[in-house]
Amino acid sequence: MEIVVLRVGHRVDRDRRVTTHVGLCSRALGAQGMLLAASDRSIVSTIRDVVQRWGGNFWIRDQVNWRQEIAKWKHDRGTVVHLTMYGQNLPNVINHFETERLMVVVGAEKVPPDLFRLADYNVAITNQPHSEIAALSIFLDHVQRGQELTADFSGRTRIVGNLNEKVGVKRSEPIN
Amino acid sequence: MEIVVLRVGHRVDRDRRVTTHVGLCSRALGAQGMLLAASDRSIVSTIRDVVQRWGGNFWIRDQVNWRQEIAKWKHDRGTVVHLTMYGQNLPNVINHFETERLMVVVGAEKVPPDLFRLADYNVAITNQPHSEIAALSIFLDHVQRGQELTADFSGRTRIVGNLNEKVGVKRSEPIN
Repeated sequence: MEIVVLRVGHRVDRDRRVTTHVGLCSRALGAQGMLLAASDRSIVSTIRDVVQRWGGNFWIRDQVNWRQEIAKWKHDRGTVVHLTMYGQNLPNVINHFETERLMVVVGAEKVPPDLFRLADYNVAITNQPHSEIAALSIFLDHVQRGQELTADFSGRTRIVGNLNEKVGVKRSEPIN
Repeated sequence: MEIVVLRVGHRVDRDRRVTTHVGLCSRALGAQGMLLAASDRSIVSTIRDVVQRWGGNFWIRDQVNWRQEIAKWKHDRGTVVHLTMYGQNLPNVINHFETERLMVVVGAEKVPPDLFRLADYNVAITNQPHSEIAALSIFLDHVQRGQELTADFSGRTRIVGNLNEKVGVKRSEPIN
């Protein structure tokens, strides 16, 4: 399954931390890359630094034009899912996403109104107000049926848990 | 199932937005209340305002002593689960939580080291770095087997989705 996350409505400074969490979740929970519809080099560098240390092939690109990216994705027969509290609740539509190419669009507080029309699906993770980070994470988890939770990133840095210990051990392992 | 979320390590200003998301997710995803181990009236008032408009009985209390709250919870035969990337991965331990009373502890970037020892379980949502909001949300979703996604909050404000429409409709309904 190919999954790309598109972040729209990012406001530099105010949204930096939340958007960084969106990027980290995208990577940790099975997306292949993230498109950021804003210019924010510090987020790009934070995410790339995590990839370098923790492994995997996750990519990030900022300064994208979100309308063009959505159009391109649909032209290439990909499906565009916009996560929004105004959408249809996830349990009612989860079976529609058996496609191989998903673009998941995550907005900040205000999203451009035409995004609702441009997306193939507007999906809510409950119709209650909460967090785009939570919505993205639960969506990624459901659409991959939890398989992403046991992915191996083969990074230089990794955490080794021990079922007999309360506390896992962090260790940094050089690549041989 | 009774679930309470305990937020530790909150730094006023820097963590306000993330902690607010933690509170909103706790409410939207089935927890009954949240304890905040810091003094931050603005978060308390934001969450209470959401409860008043969007419904449900979610409660929040700040200025708690986290060690005392954990001790009290364990004394009352509740189980304490600390979410941390250094813990055991969720799929390996999810079957341990068939209890009726769960305290879910969510830290910020740095957590007090003795939290690992005081918790009954240290659980990771993947051993990769991402977001306490994501970890909490996926944990709440798994432990309730997705049942929380269709809860009815009976709030004055609610969103009514329509399977035949791309866009749901927001409407505000007075309580009769």
